[in-house]
Amino acid sequence: MTTLPRTMFAVIQTHDGYSGSATGPVIEDAADWLAEAELPVPEPGPGQVLIKLRASSVNPSDLHFIKGEYGQPRVKGSPAGFEGCGDVVATGTGAEALQGQRVAFVAAGSGAWAEYVVTQALMCIPLRPDISDDDGSAQIVNPMTAMAMVDIARGAGDAFVVSAATSQLGKLMCSLGRDLGLKPIAIVRRAEAVNSLKELGAHEVLVSSDPDMMQKFQAISKELKPRVFLDAVSDQMSEQVFCAMPNGARWVVYGKLSPELPKLTQTGQLIFMSKRIEGFWLTKWMTSTPPEDQMRVVAEVQARFADGRWKTDVSERLGLRDVVTNLADALKKSDGKVIIAP
Amino acid sequence: MTTLPRTMFAVIQTHDGYSGSATGPVIEDAADWLAEAELPVPEPGPGQVLIKLRASSVNPSDLHFIKGEYGQPRVKGSPAGFEGCGDVVATGTGAEALQGQRVAFVAAGSGAWAEYVVTQALMCIPLRPDISDDDGSAQIVNPMTAMAMVDIARGAGDAFVVSAATSQLGKLMCSLGRDLGLKPIAIVRRAEAVNSLKELGAHEVLVSSDPDMMQKFQAISKELKPRVFLDAVSDQMSEQVFCAMPNGARWVVYGKLSPELPKLTQTGQLIFMSKRIEGFWLTKWMTSTPPEDQMRVVAEVQARFADGRWKTDVSERLGLRDVVTNLADALKKSDGKVIIAP
Repeated sequence: MTTLPRTMFAVIQTHDGYSGSATGPVIEDAADWLAEAELPVPEPGPGQVLIKLRASSVNPSDLHFIKGEYGQPRVKGSPAGFEGCGDVVATGTGAEALQGQRVAFVAAGSGAWAEYVVTQALMCIPLRPDISDDDGSAQIVNPMTAMAMVDIARGAGDAFVVSAATSQLGKLMCSLGRDLGLKPIAIVRRAEAVNSLKELGAHEVLVSSDPDMMQKFQAISKELKPRVFLDAVSDQMSEQVFCAMPNGARWVVYGKLSPELPKLTQTGQLIFMSKRIEGFWLTKWMTSTPPEDQMRVVAEVQARFADGRWKTDVSERLGLRDVVTNLADALKKSDGKVIIAP
Repeated sequence: MTTLPRTMFAVIQTHDGYSGSATGPVIEDAADWLAEAELPVPEPGPGQVLIKLRASSVNPSDLHFIKGEYGQPRVKGSPAGFEGCGDVVATGTGAEALQGQRVAFVAAGSGAWAEYVVTQALMCIPLRPDISDDDGSAQIVNPMTAMAMVDIARGAGDAFVVSAATSQLGKLMCSLGRDLGLKPIAIVRRAEAVNSLKELGAHEVLVSSDPDMMQKFQAISKELKPRVFLDAVSDQMSEQVFCAMPNGARWVVYGKLSPELPKLTQTGQLIFMSKRIEGFWLTKWMTSTPPEDQMRVVAEVQARFADGRWKTDVSERLGLRDVVTNLADALKKSDGKVIIAP
């Protein structure tokens, strides 16, 4: 075992708990929420591992979290960042099998935006050698969410609706949907994205700024009968899409990109048409889905990255020491992921 | 078999299909939606019966329906009214067993606000002699809804929330809840109703106009952990009640007494707390629940009316020939049911 340093560089949270706000995954200045710090390198407890970071990816959930708008309370002084990949350099009791392995991980104890990270061995996935660090750093949150949500859609019929379809997750769901013989109906903001999304796998692509968007959706809904709406936007147009879906439709909210608060304009849709509104959260899915189903999904995700069907589009790379000053700017490039490396 | 007249008096609908509006179960003048007519007495087809009306009750769903805001399209010229009781005076093939019986019924073919009604034998419940015509006329829609919805609540824990708790249905749910050892949390509009609802079975009663209503509800929710909200109001306060409920809570919408369109203020409730919003419709429940479960519920409902645990509070009686002119006024007395007799 190599000798470990006593301290490490980390990007830490500057607030505690929940903010009570709901302004969405957008930041103007990372310094409002984050600060640089030199912290002791954490020690892994029983069932935990210490990981030397190779790369971390920035997800919308990271921004929800640092702003106090996520499903877990912030801990002031603790590193931010949920997801990354790196090398296991120390292990606690029961986690010895991972020693020396390169793993993708979700940070459960300390955050991923630090030189070293402690997390549960259960939250680590050993990486095949043919997976790059970029892909490894974005191997869990989006791909697992895509697999789990498309699985929900598949259980309810052929066609399903995906909003914010140009996001990494949206693209994964369109491509996975087509591979499974389903018909993804994509909703995007910009007309430029239509062709590339169709190539990726979308059966239909609608542009939300098109004045005829709702008429077009109604016609498509009548023909394809989508029964699941995987929605990361959650605005008034989302509610209208839900209302235009057929009997038994489910509006599955998994994000809140729009600050607009949608009104429920037709409660009759819930009463007479057996529709419902629900949420999806990967953390919940991981704790409520049998481990063998999760492992099947994990293996399938890696196979897709290894053979090139999926890849992580990188829009910007940041050093860990540039996060506080440059993250807000880096996020403005909306066509890929921001990757953080030490 | 007695000789039947060729024609009958009926209160008919004057509009077709859906209105597209959502103004709720309130009318200013029944003549906006209804007219008097002399129609041929209908003939029962296979599986159907002809019923000579004894009494019909007026439910909020009747008003939603005539206004074109219900889950079925209106048929211009067809009698209004969903529910009543009467004597089976003719039967179609397969329905002979009901000949001569006094039955409670839901009108599936022609409406209940007429001297004679045709409906499916399956939508009739033979009445025990110890059930009055008043109780018989309101035996299905509200009591079955109460049984079915409290059953949903019982499956999710001890405590549940009921809005519009002074309605007939609200009272039935509070009383049934207590009988089953549950803890109904009632929401009412007027402070005068608090004591009587507590006597009826409500464990807690909150007054929606109380400025501290939400703080009080939060404290009660923390203590009793209600996981089902049976809601006939569906306004912004309903949404706040839902948000103040614990993990896994379900907002079950079954009515729309308020014209206010509720905004979803916290999508995080859906995503991180596994909450969901859904509807309840008796018609759906009756077609999706096994007949033996329905029969158990029917028998239990009658037993409750027969031994006096439940009774129909009558606020006003109308002759069939007074419905068009007087129904709107009769409905203004809000503390009981309007009963229509030929």
